[in-house]
Amino acid sequence: MTRQSGIGRLFHVLRAQQFDRPLLDHLCDLTTLIRKVAKTREGLNFLRSLLSHKRVMLYFTQPSTRTFLSFENACHILGVQTSEIRNPATSSEYKGESSEDAIRTFSSYVDMIVMRTNVEGLADQTARHLDETERPVPIINAGSGRDQHPTQALLDIYTLHRSFEHRGGIDGKTIAMVGDLARGRTVRSLSYLMKNYRDVKLIFIAPPSLAMRDDLKQFLDKRQIDWSEHDNLEDVVPRADAIYMTRLQDEHDVAGESRQLDLTNFTFHYRFLERLGPEAIVMHPMPRRDEIDRRVDGDPRAVYWRQARNGMWTRTSILANIFAVDDAILERL
Amino acid sequence: MTRQSGIGRLFHVLRAQQFDRPLLDHLCDLTTLIRKVAKTREGLNFLRSLLSHKRVMLYFTQPSTRTFLSFENACHILGVQTSEIRNPATSSEYKGESSEDAIRTFSSYVDMIVMRTNVEGLADQTARHLDETERPVPIINAGSGRDQHPTQALLDIYTLHRSFEHRGGIDGKTIAMVGDLARGRTVRSLSYLMKNYRDVKLIFIAPPSLAMRDDLKQFLDKRQIDWSEHDNLEDVVPRADAIYMTRLQDEHDVAGESRQLDLTNFTFHYRFLERLGPEAIVMHPMPRRDEIDRRVDGDPRAVYWRQARNGMWTRTSILANIFAVDDAILERL
Amino acid sequence: MTRQSGIGRLFHVLRAQQFDRPLLDHLCDLTTLIRKVAKTREGLNFLRSLLSHKRVMLYFTQPSTRTFLSFENACHILGVQTSEIRNPATSSEYKGESSEDAIRTFSSYVDMIVMRTNVEGLADQTARHLDETERPVPIINAGSGRDQHPTQALLDIYTLHRSFEHRGGIDGKTIAMVGDLARGRTVRSLSYLMKNYRDVKLIFIAPPSLAMRDDLKQFLDKRQIDWSEHDNLEDVVPRADAIYMTRLQDEHDVAGESRQLDLTNFTFHYRFLERLGPEAIVMHPMPRRDEIDRRVDGDPRAVYWRQARNGMWTRTSILANIFAVDDAILERL
Repeated sequence: MTRQSGIGRLFHVLRAQQFDRPLLDHLCDLTTLIRKVAKTREGLNFLRSLLSHKRVMLYFTQPSTRTFLSFENACHILGVQTSEIRNPATSSEYKGESSEDAIRTFSSYVDMIVMRTNVEGLADQTARHLDETERPVPIINAGSGRDQHPTQALLDIYTLHRSFEHRGGIDGKTIAMVGDLARGRTVRSLSYLMKNYRDVKLIFIAPPSLAMRDDLKQFLDKRQIDWSEHDNLEDVVPRADAIYMTRLQDEHDVAGESRQLDLTNFTFHYRFLERLGPEAIVMHPMPRRDEIDRRVDGDPRAVYWRQARNGMWTRTSILANIFAVDDAILERL
Repeated sequence: MTRQSGIGRLFHVLRAQQFDRPLLDHLCDLTTLIRKVAKTREGLNFLRSLLSHKRVMLYFTQPSTRTFLSFENACHILGVQTSEIRNPATSSEYKGESSEDAIRTFSSYVDMIVMRTNVEGLADQTARHLDETERPVPIINAGSGRDQHPTQALLDIYTLHRSFEHRGGIDGKTIAMVGDLARGRTVRSLSYLMKNYRDVKLIFIAPPSLAMRDDLKQFLDKRQIDWSEHDNLEDVVPRADAIYMTRLQDEHDVAGESRQLDLTNFTFHYRFLERLGPEAIVMHPMPRRDEIDRRVDGDPRAVYWRQARNGMWTRTSILANIFAVDDAILERL
Repeated sequence: MTRQSGIGRLFHVLRAQQFDRPLLDHLCDLTTLIRKVAKTREGLNFLRSLLSHKRVMLYFTQPSTRTFLSFENACHILGVQTSEIRNPATSSEYKGESSEDAIRTFSSYVDMIVMRTNVEGLADQTARHLDETERPVPIINAGSGRDQHPTQALLDIYTLHRSFEHRGGIDGKTIAMVGDLARGRTVRSLSYLMKNYRDVKLIFIAPPSLAMRDDLKQFLDKRQIDWSEHDNLEDVVPRADAIYMTRLQDEHDVAGESRQLDLTNFTFHYRFLERLGPEAIVMHPMPRRDEIDRRVDGDPRAVYWRQARNGMWTRTSILANIFAVDDAILERL
């Protein structure tokens, strides 16, 4: 098997919109293949040999343990050596250095920077700045403030893709998104990516104060993607192919206003499992609180743990694509 | 040489009581063998190839630099790639996630978790929880609150085993334990493990307020292990095969009460070296304060530095056993 | 190509004065060669195989992100596995342990310690202490308080060496040093190293309160190294082969006194590029503030970014020398 012509080679990964359908399909197939190769010791050692000549810096000035570990292990799977900044207060800044200078210096030691910050737009800005230098390295946005988290969107796509593999893929599926849709970055990115699929139906289920925002609804209208709103998850359960649960993002509250909300209608209760389709799935980007009954965890349709692990595998895929070893993996088949 | 039938394969390592005599002997022999293999570049590269397909997470929410480094380097010796959490405040928790959920997510990226926490029982609880999931990984307890630190106990056993190798092993030896016996985790674990050896004599030397606790004395009586108490180290020096020194654990004081104690009788003074048997040894789990005269360091019977390094080697052994490459190491002979 | 007889093998690297001319030339040539080898995947994998049996601890109790990353990636280039202490408060100290004991314990897990502290002389002291033990490991001083930072000096030498390679090397060149010369560790170390080169002229350009200190001027006089002082960079630009810019070290101010200074005459302004010789270079140890106009960055004579990257390569060279794989690299030619 070889990569089909016309499939892109990523350099910077800055926003979910970069992924078109052929690239999404390629990355999903590559992810499945990597997982398969990784089932044996020989396969794992093969993968680890692919990028043993590369070094990546994980620049995480905004703490995010799970995204950090997911990327670091993706690097390790391909043999990439990692160095890390996990402290919001890096030593350089106290000496009055600009973060542009600091990151350019750091970039000179490595072949790629994976960047998580709470500064909106810093990943883009860094990528643009490095592009003007003698030695640009790829920047992967691993979450920048509230705007983008493209690799999270990709792992969600992969989880849907993989779950519906024997049912015609994502095309034509009904996806319910539940919870804090106004402030949830993941549901927004995923909704945008639906433009790449045919006949998808989105159902938004949120308290009025946390409803999906108008800009995204307008985007969906323009792209002729079917969407509707409901005020109670229970009614929607039987007809959803995927239910994407999210937690309340009350860290963005101005004055704790959302803590008063009654979330009963936006919770996946244990009894819902009976009404859920036999091939439907329940997703969650994690971390969760009480929006999913813990007894649901044991059901095979609860895929949120696999979804977390998929994050590592899809990131492995992205690294393989950027560093051009995806063909080597495909050829192993 | 091959592993003898009947020798266990560890999965979780949660408490010192898990180690029976055949396993202790196997791990000690394996440790000696690994150290031998590690003496050449070829040997080290062989060891590093054994687990190059494995990834381990060091989850240290309670800081412990020496245990951390010891485990990390044990991993590196076998080629295992490591990722780490060394910050008590992991990012996930602030979002209201349970530590069960957090650790389960982290576990999905790796093949094992080495866990150091100040929560008693968390390692056990995590192991039990993961056992109920689709993808359990081994948990190694690297110290959980005041209850257990099984790999420390193993390195102490190894140091005794190795030191008495040409004198019939640990069986029949007299071991003096000195200092804060009431609160020292290491002396307690080591005492429990003595049930695996024949005719060992334990001598406890501590100020009355820090005497070995009754529960352990009862355990020793039940197992018919000979023990006695003394109030002065000096008298015991000539007849001890091993003297295990410990420091005052005054961080557990309620109101600084132990800082008033006169520790002269519980200190290893320089002049004791003359009265110490020519093949006896002085141990200390480190860190130490003033309970050993620094001039003792230069004496070949002071084995506490080797003991620290043994910690790395015995942990390497445990990893090799869990991941089933001990046979490959034995076969290299 | 092989290493010439008489070229030293480093063990501890504690101060710039250790490097004599043959060793400096050897390390510079080795650095250039390593960079060449590192241009291909095969070359990088060859380098990474050289020290895959070694483990190094980065002991950084004084934060320094760029020096840390530079050393860590140097280690990774040669396949060395690293473990790190980046927290000023290591866990051991709170238990009343001496730093001597702590570092000796840490040293028992690894083959080398790279040490950055704010304690003057701690690297020397540690080296001396370990030399008296059974298992000394090399210590590299990665910056200790205000006294020494020898690998920084070496990267500066390499940058000069490489820049003047086709113009007869460093011998006979004129080097202007600009800014806070009283407190800048890098300019002091570099000045000391000039004793290894013939006919070098040093020009110090600093506000009177930050002038180069007398001890160094006396050293230069004794070694018959030509030096002079000027009060304005602009006049010196046309005749300098290298202009070494430095930032104000106002963290060492007693009462913010240097913040009042007018630094106009000690700034590299954009218009200076016209008067700068076509083969001259502008250096800076970074981080910088406003002492170089940012528009200078795009000029090929601005070598400070390459200088930062050179730091990684010269440290790779030092590791290769200490661990005796420099010959293997030379033989690859």
